[in-house]
Amino acid sequence: MRRLLLVSTSTTHGTGYLEHCAAEARRLFAGSRSLAFVPYAVHDLDAYAEAARGVFEGWGFELSSVHREPTPAAVVERADGLFIGGGNTFRLVRELHRQRLIDPIRRRVTDGMPYMGTSAGSNVACPTLCTTNDMPVVEPPSFEALGLVRFQINPHYLDPDPTSTHMGETRDQRLAEFLEENDRTVVALREGAMLSVRGDTMTLLGRPGGKLFRRGQEPRDLADGTDLSDLLAERSSG
Amino acid sequence: MRRLLLVSTSTTHGTGYLEHCAAEARRLFAGSRSLAFVPYAVHDLDAYAEAARGVFEGWGFELSSVHREPTPAAVVERADGLFIGGGNTFRLVRELHRQRLIDPIRRRVTDGMPYMGTSAGSNVACPTLCTTNDMPVVEPPSFEALGLVRFQINPHYLDPDPTSTHMGETRDQRLAEFLEENDRTVVALREGAMLSVRGDTMTLLGRPGGKLFRRGQEPRDLADGTDLSDLLAERSSG
Repeated sequence: MRRLLLVSTSTTHGTGYLEHCAAEARRLFAGSRSLAFVPYAVHDLDAYAEAARGVFEGWGFELSSVHREPTPAAVVERADGLFIGGGNTFRLVRELHRQRLIDPIRRRVTDGMPYMGTSAGSNVACPTLCTTNDMPVVEPPSFEALGLVRFQINPHYLDPDPTSTHMGETRDQRLAEFLEENDRTVVALREGAMLSVRGDTMTLLGRPGGKLFRRGQEPRDLADGTDLSDLLAERSSG
Repeated sequence: MRRLLLVSTSTTHGTGYLEHCAAEARRLFAGSRSLAFVPYAVHDLDAYAEAARGVFEGWGFELSSVHREPTPAAVVERADGLFIGGGNTFRLVRELHRQRLIDPIRRRVTDGMPYMGTSAGSNVACPTLCTTNDMPVVEPPSFEALGLVRFQINPHYLDPDPTSTHMGETRDQRLAEFLEENDRTVVALREGAMLSVRGDTMTLLGRPGGKLFRRGQEPRDLADGTDLSDLLAERSSG
């Protein structure tokens, strides 16, 4: 049974690292002991792995970063849970391809290994990186990501600010551009929100909620607790 | 002699389309009559071409959009000036490659054809698209852009907001990520600012000014009128 926890951001304003999603994370990994960590979205891999290890050890889990092994995929193969942290999505996708992690992660997660992602780590659970907010600081060999779900996530979703004088695109305009080019559903998650997938069931969790974007439809607000299981089955032409 | 006008945004808050850079644009194209327009950064090509044509005709120029011809490069070949408008940089770069416009534009601009870009159109004058703020809604065949200058531009530059509670990256953090991965100078242009290149001379124009980002250095504020000619000669390992 597929089990995923896809979190908008690792840290909300005024809470510590992973604090706002701690209960959900511990529930996801309840049957696991030894977790693999993928730190490639950031530049300083050692520091990032230490920060993550500290939190997960406090919860009673072992956490091994894939970057510390000559064959990163081997860490994924022997772990019984996986966490991919946030940072720059382009950097992360480049390394997932370079380190040949795409296929092993897909296979293990399909076979039931629990998967948790925050920010870029949630974005790469989608078919492509095309709804990231990040700057394309490196060129990955492909925009293809893990495809653990069929829709796209936009993390760190920000509602348009009607008082802004900035002429750059709002997030809604950016997502409208995405829908001009791709007929694929987008779930935008405000900071503090997350998606919990268990088999064929998906629920949006977290008080800030999110927003659903689809081609040809007005964006629809999504409240804490909304059942989104339909999106797991949805076929898309995107 | 190379002549470029690289503008941060087509429209500043409270002014009309291209109004804030009208004097500079008319000076750039003073010796030209017939201009080519590249509209590929947006979805509705016809509407965009009409809007641009309206403004340029008001200034006394003819403007032909490359998308109206079976061979877009032919429009560039016979024009005596080029304007590339803003929108989504990924979409623009994809089409510059697809429509085989990269080499003809490089050659004509090197030979002295005046070039004006706004937003995405300024970004693609750089070696790559890697400092765009846009969402990667389509995957271009390569991140390589026109390379009319050797540094990168970040358009629509926004200073970090110290009161923000949003946990997504600030622009300065995004540009720091770029410098982690690329040893290449970035000129960030606030809305209302632009770079004017004439041969070996480059000047930053516009009251809002900009900011210079370099690996290993603190960002440096750039005021209206700053001479940046050094950047035209600078070699980069990026």
